Amino acid sequence: MEQTVNCNTTADDTEALVREQLKIIKKGALEIIQEDELAAKLRRSLTTKKPLTIKLGLDPSAPDIHLGHTVVLRKVRQMQQFGHRAVIIIGDFTGKIGDPTGRSKTRKQLTEEQVRENAATYMEQIFKVLDREKTQVLFNSEWLAKLDFEAVIHLAASTTVARLLEREDFSKRYRNNEPIGLHEFFYPLMQAYDSVQINADIELGGTDQTFNILMGRTLQKSVGQESQIAIFMPLLEGLDGVEKMSKSLGNYIGVDEAPEIMFKKAMEVPDNLILRYFNLVTDLHPDEIAQLSERLSAGENPRQIKLLLAEHITALYHGEAEAAKAKDYFLSVFTAGELPKDMPHVTGTGEETTLLDLIPHLTSGGFISSGSEFRRLVKQGGVSVNGERVNQLDTPLTTMETVLKIGKKTFVCFDLPKQNDR
Amino acid sequence: MEQTVNCNTTADDTEALVREQLKIIKKGALEIIQEDELAAKLRRSLTTKKPLTIKLGLDPSAPDIHLGHTVVLRKVRQMQQFGHRAVIIIGDFTGKIGDPTGRSKTRKQLTEEQVRENAATYMEQIFKVLDREKTQVLFNSEWLAKLDFEAVIHLAASTTVARLLEREDFSKRYRNNEPIGLHEFFYPLMQAYDSVQINADIELGGTDQTFNILMGRTLQKSVGQESQIAIFMPLLEGLDGVEKMSKSLGNYIGVDEAPEIMFKKAMEVPDNLILRYFNLVTDLHPDEIAQLSERLSAGENPRQIKLLLAEHITALYHGEAEAAKAKDYFLSVFTAGELPKDMPHVTGTGEETTLLDLIPHLTSGGFISSGSEFRRLVKQGGVSVNGERVNQLDTPLTTMETVLKIGKKTFVCFDLPKQNDR
Repeated sequence: MEQTVNCNTTADDTEALVREQLKIIKKGALEIIQEDELAAKLRRSLTTKKPLTIKLGLDPSAPDIHLGHTVVLRKVRQMQQFGHRAVIIIGDFTGKIGDPTGRSKTRKQLTEEQVRENAATYMEQIFKVLDREKTQVLFNSEWLAKLDFEAVIHLAASTTVARLLEREDFSKRYRNNEPIGLHEFFYPLMQAYDSVQINADIELGGTDQTFNILMGRTLQKSVGQESQIAIFMPLLEGLDGVEKMSKSLGNYIGVDEAPEIMFKKAMEVPDNLILRYFNLVTDLHPDEIAQLSERLSAGENPRQIKLLLAEHITALYHGEAEAAKAKDYFLSVFTAGELPKDMPHVTGTGEETTLLDLIPHLTSGGFISSGSEFRRLVKQGGVSVNGERVNQLDTPLTTMETVLKIGKKTFVCFDLPKQNDR
Repeated sequence: MEQTVNCNTTADDTEALVREQLKIIKKGALEIIQEDELAAKLRRSLTTKKPLTIKLGLDPSAPDIHLGHTVVLRKVRQMQQFGHRAVIIIGDFTGKIGDPTGRSKTRKQLTEEQVRENAATYMEQIFKVLDREKTQVLFNSEWLAKLDFEAVIHLAASTTVARLLEREDFSKRYRNNEPIGLHEFFYPLMQAYDSVQINADIELGGTDQTFNILMGRTLQKSVGQESQIAIFMPLLEGLDGVEKMSKSLGNYIGVDEAPEIMFKKAMEVPDNLILRYFNLVTDLHPDEIAQLSERLSAGENPRQIKLLLAEHITALYHGEAEAAKAKDYFLSVFTAGELPKDMPHVTGTGEETTLLDLIPHLTSGGFISSGSEFRRLVKQGGVSVNGERVNQLDTPLTTMETVLKIGKKTFVCFDLPKQNDR
């Protein structure tokens, strides 16, 4: 996969390689500042055989990763496949300082230990996407904690109050007379300083990072470095197709989820987001995505393309074999029958181990009128679990997502939290 | 002069002492924030026999001191006479940093040596006013240079962007879209930190320091210290009665000037500023100043009161004896004759040693038509120097201020720069 030039490479070959890298990098990206500078860096990297340094800053305060987080990670991975080197910067300095005013609830002070622990959990998940061999992980307290007042003054002098007040959240708070602590002005500067410290060629981030990443460009220039390229990736919509993917909204696919769950959830992606998901959370080549797009335009059933998406996503985290199994399972369970589109979802407590344990949920949800009715239905063969008829109340629940069919028309989908024995 | 309480002091006596100190401190002050807090501090100091710490921050970038600078110094001195302790803080940290953007011409970076040299020159003059025994001189780089990024962040968190933008010069520049470097926001915070460092009870300053001194109060409170009292002294008008006293405007009395110059210049204070000068640049008791005010109101010639002012000022810097001599000299030279009020002033080059050397100035100024005319006049006894008739062209010029009378009506006052032999 890695591309370099050798003695026999012509200028034309180099340009073709630059174009190919650009094509992959631009896939799904919202904006690149500046594309011509990026092309120049890629060209130089090919000629000198010196990989580019890609910076990705991570906040280890919420260490559970879902597909939304992988949008930037996957872009880094794609660049690693061209031989470039990733530097993950854990913002532990900010985490250690917390919010000295104690006003902010979102930025609470973490102990060094907590920061390291979070980071370790985080890293384990990150390396499901990134190439460990081409990734360096640094903690920014390593250099930021050492800056003295004079150095901080020099850092502060690189920007102006007006420039900082242009950042959207600052300008809004200032207009609304909501206090902005002076220390908050330093968070963008710290991030910019990180770019200088590692002499970053490229920084990736979501659009919420625009201001901070461009600050890095400015600071690098002011100290005589070449400005980093900013690559902004969009925020991924969740399975509801509307809100940003997030754990708290429940519209997410976690990278740690079991193959069959991952596959099933991917099949819930709204049709209009199929191509977007291909672009943002898979490594499929843009040319192949273009072909899929044509198939959709030609009127092919989106479900066929979505099955490819689900298999692709599952394969990225569980391998081809597990993905194929998950697909078979999905088809047998969710397609053989006549599953309705809008099944009610019920979230379990994690204590449910057999069918019997679901009765309280079914009665409280009004799906059955009583426990004895349910017992009778089971004995009569009127209940199936994940497409299989059951006739025992102690039938064990083996999957995290369990679809119950009661009688002829009632379908309930149970989300059962992980347990050791499941 | 020092007042303390002892075993026999009653509460009434203490209150009388507090009132007396307050009266002196308030003399000439523009504003005290807060007076009741100041009274409480003075009371506690009297009871515990623990002197108060008076902070005075000085910028050693312009080391020549004139009476305008002594307004705050004299206030400190008056408090020292009650036993309180002054801490002079030389802002060398700021001086060493300079303006990292290089945009500001007024704040240029000084070497450590330059800062120390300036400070030494400055101190020599300061101790013409302050009590050396009760004065401690500190350089703020001692503690500011040691702050690390985390400490700076904590310092920054003590205030808000909106609060800083309230400072008049900042708000004006922000409104006019003139850049404010983020580092500039730290100068008030540094000054505030100095107050915390020395646990200041009182900080003195001109009204241009209002924002910075009040910032000290806030920061002290936020770290659990008692807030310092802010004493704001007015800016002294120069001898022109309009502009602020300043070296560059030439409307100043330098503390280093010779007794007769000092006396003569003090006699140029406009009548309407006589009492203001008594209040701001002498140590005369407020009750005595009140008596002088009554004499003026009663119609006494202001010149008499001004003679007292000139003698007072001269005595402060040269002692009583020299002041008396300067007064005699002034009266003999400038009062015996019929000196006009608005004599033309001519500034010499410093090369003039005898009457002969004045001829070029006299012809170029149009006071005489030719050198030969002047020679004739001298021989005829028509020229006098400082009130004494001369008949030799090689009459030496012995005073820095030399009044020439030519014929019956022409008066010229020469300001002759210092020379070793004069």
